[in-house]
Parts: sequence; structure tokens; C-alpha cells
Amino acid sequence: MAEKVREGRGAEKRAGRAVIDADVHEMFRSIRDLAPYLEAPWRSRIEVADGWPGPPGLPYAYPQISGVAKADAVTSDGSPAGSEYELVREQLLDEYGIERAVLTGGFYPTEMQVQPEFATALAAAYNDWMMENWLECDERFLGSVCIAAQDPRAAAREIDRVGAHPRMVQVVLPTIPHDTLGKPFYGEIFEAAVRNGLAVAFHQGNASATAVGLPTYYIEWHTAVAQSWQSQLIGLIAHGVFDRHPDLRVLMIESSWTWVPSLMWRFDYNYRSLRREVPWVKRMPSEYIRDNVRFTTQPMEYPDDPEHLYRMFEMIGSEEFLLFSTDYPHWDFDSPSQVFPKSFPKDLREKILSSNARKFYDL
Amino acid sequence: MAEKVREGRGAEKRAGRAVIDADVHEMFRSIRDLAPYLEAPWRSRIEVADGWPGPPGLPYAYPQISGVAKADAVTSDGSPAGSEYELVREQLLDEYGIERAVLTGGFYPTEMQVQPEFATALAAAYNDWMMENWLECDERFLGSVCIAAQDPRAAAREIDRVGAHPRMVQVVLPTIPHDTLGKPFYGEIFEAAVRNGLAVAFHQGNASATAVGLPTYYIEWHTAVAQSWQSQLIGLIAHGVFDRHPDLRVLMIESSWTWVPSLMWRFDYNYRSLRREVPWVKRMPSEYIRDNVRFTTQPMEYPDDPEHLYRMFEMIGSEEFLLFSTDYPHWDFDSPSQVFPKSFPKDLREKILSSNARKFYDL
Repeated sequence: MAEKVREGRGAEKRAGRAVIDADVHEMFRSIRDLAPYLEAPWRSRIEVADGWPGPPGLPYAYPQISGVAKADAVTSDGSPAGSEYELVREQLLDEYGIERAVLTGGFYPTEMQVQPEFATALAAAYNDWMMENWLECDERFLGSVCIAAQDPRAAAREIDRVGAHPRMVQVVLPTIPHDTLGKPFYGEIFEAAVRNGLAVAFHQGNASATAVGLPTYYIEWHTAVAQSWQSQLIGLIAHGVFDRHPDLRVLMIESSWTWVPSLMWRFDYNYRSLRREVPWVKRMPSEYIRDNVRFTTQPMEYPDDPEHLYRMFEMIGSEEFLLFSTDYPHWDFDSPSQVFPKSFPKDLREKILSSNARKFYDL
Repeated sequence: MAEKVREGRGAEKRAGRAVIDADVHEMFRSIRDLAPYLEAPWRSRIEVADGWPGPPGLPYAYPQISGVAKADAVTSDGSPAGSEYELVREQLLDEYGIERAVLTGGFYPTEMQVQPEFATALAAAYNDWMMENWLECDERFLGSVCIAAQDPRAAAREIDRVGAHPRMVQVVLPTIPHDTLGKPFYGEIFEAAVRNGLAVAFHQGNASATAVGLPTYYIEWHTAVAQSWQSQLIGLIAHGVFDRHPDLRVLMIESSWTWVPSLMWRFDYNYRSLRREVPWVKRMPSEYIRDNVRFTTQPMEYPDDPEHLYRMFEMIGSEEFLLFSTDYPHWDFDSPSQVFPKSFPKDLREKILSSNARKFYDL
């Protein structure tokens, strides 16, 4: 593996810097790739001609403006970007000297409004497909457990089934618009994650919505969609998930993060006035965020004055809360060499590129 | 009027400081107070025994934790806080030496899902009731035009009808969850506001929701509800409302405001990548926010280090964007003497307490 890393152009540039990428999307070419991993009767639902094309809304509800993918990441046979291991290795792992890349997928059976048993079967098939076609290809890959949260007991069984894989590091959940995943109904998912030493990561899904539902334009959705993580985060705290699981580690992927100080202040203020509504919440909301929650870099914000960006770290009160991510292969990909403003403090840069993730995932 | 102001205890404390309060809720005792201002057939709908009690959800969907009102603002006969002029004068205007108080109501026919013609009639009745029972009582009061936005043409007529009142300063809209008020469908409302020299103010309504709809607890809703203004603000910009009306002044009331830098950065970043989706938007989103939009202080955020709070002004790039407000008579009322951290810069304090509002409303 070390050989491969040294081959890349990026590795030369970045010798000695062990970058960890917390958000890489491995994709199937089509949902039919999962057929071999499904048993009857599920297999037939996607195998027949004109079969089921997958959950609605994939990849997004909006006709694409910038495309979902980096233009150069689409494969030579026209398959979706991120669906070919060799290209991911070349364009990402080797190019940028990535030591570890956390695969986060992009397939969320949790969003299926119908047939929860099928959703559960699809999640298991996806995990088997992913382990065989990605984790086994390259030791640099770390995996996320796909589940169907609408059946929390089955989801917990799936976490127990595949969570023992030595390179599974987290459970991934989409920020669904119709429910708060911190509710007791979903409790077994968090129990299983903690029992298996896994973090729980939240990523926007294809159904993620905002305070006005699905707004008219993609630029509106993309600007406001951080709200979907905010609401899930607020829900986790208000429902006492961190009180029940003080060691639970939560990662917010692609949520952006410069809204965190404002939310911490507001939530703490409200906690002082309103905590008797949620007496099981024992600490200030900002403490759970600081101790148990991490965020990824992509998408970075770029204020005119870069100092404003790292002021945010002071406001949050931690230099550990942020993990580097590329969001490969999507259009708003960030490279480790260009993501930070030039004046960004060097030691903070190193923490974000590597040691924060190392600590969070106990690598 | 000057006599009255000098009588208050607050006036002595604050001699020479002409505080303007941008958010005071005048309330009716019951929706039946509007009956004399309605004609047949509308009048009978609220006049009959066991008649219509008002739009659903008033005042909030949640059983109250802290109550909606300051405990001492409830009237002696048990009527809602804010429903008795003499008490408002005593507790607010005189007590704090308020020179001008913008009445923002708390009655939003825009939220009615049924009978738009009745909603339109109610808005007009509310305006007549408010002008007669509040604006005429005290010259310190400024008024907001109540409308039913679901019929934009009728709303525009109502703005034309009462907007000429010399102390009407704005149209007030609730941050509805089911639509973006920047859509062309609502265009006549903004045209009428500009035509009448009025600002357009957004206040949360009783239906305002978040990215997960109505979350489980009030503390969640109250922490996340800023999302409802964010989405409306994003929608105004994306739909080109400020391009059509470069002089339109918009006020976000009770939205909190420390999320503004993050949203500006994110929106500008997206504009650079995605602006071809909305080619009618000619300037960077942050420019519209800085030039056309203002926010009110209440609820203030209180970071441990107060310096973080006024760093936000640097990040937004303006000291004009914030107007003082008390939110009288609600439980999270802020007084002008206690709202700012002790170390808050004096000249900025004065701008927020007075001159920013004076300029925004051209007083």
C-alpha cells in the first residue's frame, strides 16, 4: 500500500503529510449492481427489465446546474463518477497522498417511504457490495454502515452484522426531512453503534429539505440545506441521545460548519430558560457539541477576510471539531492543497487534515 | 407626548437617549374585538356564540414552557399580555424612555389555509382596529400593515388603502413554512410596499417550521426557527426581488442574527458556482443582505466571550444592520439597559438603540 501512495504525484508534493479524507462517495453503476447481494424475493424487484430504478430523487430533485459530479470523474464508459475504483485511486488517493478515505456512499434506504423490509434488505446488500468491491480493493478505504432507519431493530441487527469489520468506522444516516433521528423510536440504532465502537455520521440525503420544504432553485437548496443537519443535531441533544450515550461520537458530513457558533449560543440561551421541558438533558447543549460532535471541511466558506474563518474556531472553543473531506467525486470537491486560505495557521491545518480524524476514528 | 416620556422612571435613567423599539406586539383580547371592523357576511363568522376562535395554533403549537408572555404583562382582567395600551405605556414606553415603538402584531391571516377572502377581510379589520386602538392612542407608536399574502392582489390593495397613514412604516409577513414569499406569485405585495414607501418585515408566525417540520419540543423549535427566516431571505434573493426593487427595505424581526455571516459566505460561494441558474440575480447575495436587509436584536446571543458577539459586525461588514427590539410583552423580552454585554462598544450601542432604526424607517 505504501508503494501505491508514493507513486502519486500528490504524494511527492505532500511527503510526510498523512491526509485523511472523511467524505468520499463510492457509487454503484446502477442499483442492479446490488442484485447479486439480494436474495429472493428482493432480487427480482430490481432485476426484471424496467425494474425499480432506485429510491426517488436520486441524485437530486433538481435538474443539475453544475452536474453532481466533477466533470473529469465520470468514467470512460459513462458510468457515474465514483463508480470505478481505479479512477478513485488515481484521481484521489494517489494524487493527493490520501492515507485513509472514509467511504460514505450516497444510497439511503432510510429515505424510502415504502416497503421497509425491502429497504432493510437493500441496506444489507449495499453493505455486502461495498465491502467486496471497495473495502477489499484498498486498505486505505474505511467504510460506513448503510441502514434503513425506519426499522430501527433491523437496522441495529445490520450494524451488529457488519459493524465488526475492522475497517467499518461509522453508521451513516441521511438528514431526513420528516423526522428527528434523535427520537427514542430510533434508539436501537445509537445503541448498536456504540456497542460496535462505531460513530454515527449524518449526510444530506436526496430528500433533505429546508424550512420551506424543497425551495424553487438548487442554489436555494444548497445554501439552506445546512438546516437539515442543524435540526437533526438539535434533536439528538434535546432527546437526550448524548445523555444516554456519553461516548457516542457523531460526525456531520458536508453540513458546512460556520453556523455552529450561532447555534451553540442560541441553544445554550434557550437551555437556560427552557430546560425544564427536557429535564433529561443534563449539560449545556454547547458541551455536547464540543465533546461529541465533529464536522467535515467541505464545503468550506471563504469570507473576504480569511481571519474570520479561523475566528470561528475560537468561537466554537475547539480546534478538534473539524475533519478534512474532499466530497470526491462531486462538483464542489475540495483538494487538501487548496482548501485552506493561505494564511491559515499551519498547526491547525495539520490537525484538520489528519490528527483530528485519527483521534475521532481512533485510527 | 414629551411630557409622557419624561414621566417614566426609564426616561430619567436614559435622558437624552432616544430608544427606538422595532418589535412590540399589540394584541387584541379576543378575535371578537375585530367584529366591529368587519362587514357582513364576515362579521357573523366570529360573532356567533362558539364562533371561530381564530387561526389554528395561536399563540404557539406547543404547550407553553415559559408562557408566551412576561408574567407581569398580563392584564388585571386576565386578558392577553399586550392587549392594554395603558400597561404597554407604563411598562415599556415610559419605563424605558422609548421614543418610537414599531407595533408588529401577532395576527397572521397569511397563515390561514382556508377561505382566502375571509383572511383578506380579517387583515383589513385588523388594520382598522389597530389604527383606531393603538396608533391613535400614542404618537410614539408606528404601525405594520397586516395582509393576507395568499391573495397578493387583494393584499396590494390593502397596502394601498392603509399604507398612506403617516405612521405606517412597513408590511409584516409571517415566515410561512409552505412557500417562499419571494416567488413571483407574491410580487404585487413588494410592488405595493415600495410604491407606498413601506419596508417589508418578516416575523415568525404561529405556523413557522424548521427543516424537520414541527420538532418534538419547544426548545428545538425555538432554537431552529431562525431557519424559517433564512429560507425566506434566500428566496427573496434567488427570486430576484431585490433586482426588481433595488430600494426595497426588508427587516427580519426576532430571527436572531449571528447566523448571518455564515449564510452570506455560503450563499456567495454558491453564487459563484451556480448563478447561471438564477441569471436575473445580478449582485453577490451578501451585497443585497448588507444593503437592503436589517435585523432586530431580540433574541440576543450571549457567547462566553462578548468580543465574539461584536466580531460578528466585522464579519457582516456593517454596523447598520441591527435594530434594537424588546419583543414586548413576550417572555424573552430584552430591555435596552441590559441587552448588551458590558464591554459592548458605546457608539455601536447607540447606533443599534436608535440611529439605525431612524435611518431604516426614515424617521
